[in-house]
Amino acid sequence: MTEFEINTSRQAQLLDITVQVNDAVRRSGVERGLCNIYVPHTTAAVIVAENWDPDVTHDLLAHLQKLVPREAGYRHAEGNAQAHILSAMLGSSLNVPVEDGKLRLGRWQGVMFAEFDGPRRRSVVVSVQAG
Amino acid sequence: MTEFEINTSRQAQLLDITVQVNDAVRRSGVERGLCNIYVPHTTAAVIVAENWDPDVTHDLLAHLQKLVPREAGYRHAEGNAQAHILSAMLGSSLNVPVEDGKLRLGRWQGVMFAEFDGPRRRSVVVSVQAG
Amino acid sequence: MTEFEINTSRQAQLLDITVQVNDAVRRSGVERGLCNIYVPHTTAAVIVAENWDPDVTHDLLAHLQKLVPREAGYRHAEGNAQAHILSAMLGSSLNVPVEDGKLRLGRWQGVMFAEFDGPRRRSVVVSVQAG
Repeated sequence: MTEFEINTSRQAQLLDITVQVNDAVRRSGVERGLCNIYVPHTTAAVIVAENWDPDVTHDLLAHLQKLVPREAGYRHAEGNAQAHILSAMLGSSLNVPVEDGKLRLGRWQGVMFAEFDGPRRRSVVVSVQAG
Repeated sequence: MTEFEINTSRQAQLLDITVQVNDAVRRSGVERGLCNIYVPHTTAAVIVAENWDPDVTHDLLAHLQKLVPREAGYRHAEGNAQAHILSAMLGSSLNVPVEDGKLRLGRWQGVMFAEFDGPRRRSVVVSVQAG
Repeated sequence: MTEFEINTSRQAQLLDITVQVNDAVRRSGVERGLCNIYVPHTTAAVIVAENWDPDVTHDLLAHLQKLVPREAGYRHAEGNAQAHILSAMLGSSLNVPVEDGKLRLGRWQGVMFAEFDGPRRRSVVVSVQAG
């Protein structure tokens, strides 16, 4: 198990962390198995998404914030209920198979850290199981 | 692999099961690895969410039921299509890394069982992989 | 790790792949552990859902497409932003516990491949970890 840190610069943001996760996989020495990427924060998430056309990540963030607006009569007093809801909807844990010592992603896929209550300094936990 | 049972008391409910899952991890004897929490029911889900401020879980349940209302011209005759849809959206399987013999959750995170067609008696399956 | 291919026949479709995944589990020889099902495509997803009443999968697909319509002023020029968003919301990776050499699914559960930009020929990656 290893951890790395990232900085987000906007309130809502998708950050491609594929390089950092693949680094952690390589350092684990595991050639074949399963990689878990875990976000220990309640306003963030981790997903797989297209990482080639920035319009895709723009549309994704925009539509998620339309489904779950920043203000919607929430009770939670800190003003970030939206972020907690989107974190639960997208999920804070992701598994990607490992093959030949790296993530077995599809051609257009990247691992994306999603923050909905930034800017923040955040941790990502990576565990790699051989098998 | 182990299972435990819980009872829900309302139609839609989030139940903190962190203690039960950590018990299962401890009994597995695994110090470092990955814990899978699996819900073998099609109207329920398992997520990670803030477990400190009850307003957060209130907002989460309320907003999810606004996105997917109980009645919306569904075809499914049993009246619980909402629950099936929310189960698929949140997911019935969750992985959390294990460190020092317990779940490596963030400070504000808890493992939450989500039921959308209760009250029910429900099972939760916990598997812990060393590695 | 093994892969199999499937063909979808409609734009949006849920396909039960439980039999193919259980075949992969049996061929792995693992009696007890964790099975990961991974979709290396950015317009598809994999979920657990009721596989008995076709009205449930109909309602699920219909409501998801209501939440994320095919056209909604997206920037992405290829016309499939909807599919990318639904793929991220449902998730491209799923873990199911393995017991007695097969998926430990609940009575009404099936593993479903979800395509939102078909018809297509698609791959599914299955990894089984003993433990």
